[in-house]
Amino acid sequence: MATVALRADERIDQLYSKDIQIIQSATVFSFSLDAVLLGAFATVSRAAKTRIVDLCAGNGAVGLFVSGQTNGQITAVELQPRLADMATRSIQLNDLSERMTVLNQDLLTVTDTIAKDSVDVVLCNPPYFKDQPTSQKNPNPHLAIARHELSANLDQILAVTSDLLKMNGKAYFVHRPERLDDLFAAMAQHRLAPKRIRFVHPKADREANMVLIEMIKDGKPNGVRVVPPVIVYAADGTYREEVRHLLYGE
Amino acid sequence: MATVALRADERIDQLYSKDIQIIQSATVFSFSLDAVLLGAFATVSRAAKTRIVDLCAGNGAVGLFVSGQTNGQITAVELQPRLADMATRSIQLNDLSERMTVLNQDLLTVTDTIAKDSVDVVLCNPPYFKDQPTSQKNPNPHLAIARHELSANLDQILAVTSDLLKMNGKAYFVHRPERLDDLFAAMAQHRLAPKRIRFVHPKADREANMVLIEMIKDGKPNGVRVVPPVIVYAADGTYREEVRHLLYGE
Repeated sequence: MATVALRADERIDQLYSKDIQIIQSATVFSFSLDAVLLGAFATVSRAAKTRIVDLCAGNGAVGLFVSGQTNGQITAVELQPRLADMATRSIQLNDLSERMTVLNQDLLTVTDTIAKDSVDVVLCNPPYFKDQPTSQKNPNPHLAIARHELSANLDQILAVTSDLLKMNGKAYFVHRPERLDDLFAAMAQHRLAPKRIRFVHPKADREANMVLIEMIKDGKPNGVRVVPPVIVYAADGTYREEVRHLLYGE
Repeated sequence: MATVALRADERIDQLYSKDIQIIQSATVFSFSLDAVLLGAFATVSRAAKTRIVDLCAGNGAVGLFVSGQTNGQITAVELQPRLADMATRSIQLNDLSERMTVLNQDLLTVTDTIAKDSVDVVLCNPPYFKDQPTSQKNPNPHLAIARHELSANLDQILAVTSDLLKMNGKAYFVHRPERLDDLFAAMAQHRLAPKRIRFVHPKADREANMVLIEMIKDGKPNGVRVVPPVIVYAADGTYREEVRHLLYGE
């Protein structure tokens, strides 16, 4: 495994189930369970010709998590230079530089760099919250931009997703259930048909706090499948088997 | 309890948890678990002034199931004369004639009879399947019209629902998860905001085969709550407690 330099506020976390190491920083960005579940929800072809784009990539976690599923090319698109740099070093750390790259670019202009209709799979863990005058934002701009739709909103992100995808290409998003109406509206607007949905409940008796959604460009309507939910914690507060396995490989 | 005449193909079923008796007929219409779950999912005010409309009412099951929650007026709207007649006799059988009536009318013209913006709660267990040239329909026209969108489609039904409802009135629908995209599109089209969603899985490890959805007229967007699912059967094939309680009152 390669050696890379860490900044003072950085640490290396390991996703044991995938044998992936990721540079994290509480100051600017840390991946969370959302990214782990999105990586596990996505189905990516093994073929080397597969073209994968991770939008709103942050420190590159989602792309890194799916890298073991595929021999294809993965591009992590991240606006913030500091996060793009973390992602680049994590790619080096995992010896993935030959097939994973970082594009430090605004996703709204990404079709200037990546050809339209050329991508097999888009992955995205977008900002969850609307940028509203009344919304309380994190005073840390790195964290605010990851949480709030300051640089791009959901409709714009799904427009870019659709532009990038080949016909019948697939996108995998994680979002908050509260935004399901916006998700469905934007999918309908941008030729993306929902295909598979999985809700994530913190406990069996609690409301869902995440939704995982697979969509297909120019897919048939009325084909949504809602698969059994992820239940994160058992009643005693310990991780249930599926999540423990994803995090620790046990 | 009143006595009513039964036709040769009819029987009386009991929903024990609600102490409700319903005239059923395998030849023309029988309520199923969908109606029971919809009745349990709906929240209806106790107040006598509450105005409730059950669209696509069939033999009146959903309206009968919520009758115990409320002292309000319930109108069951059903196009087919034979089913409307069954509903009328079930209402008599349960001594509910003073506050539950049947309107044997096409729902597309129901605002000729029930004033717009006058209803507190709309309930609906609509036909689930699109009327497509390729779709196989039941040769029995009673059953075909209950299953396929022959007389009204989802968009039309939600348009009528919205017309009927007061501002902030609520609608409760049961449908198939495959149609979630159509449901969200029609809600957005007709001023109905999704508020609460509950999926129904036949078993814990199986995909959902029903969705229960609460919507609010002119409600705020981005407020969807996805509550823990209904799991109908235990691994051994017996009803799980929640459903057994709804069906048998045990």
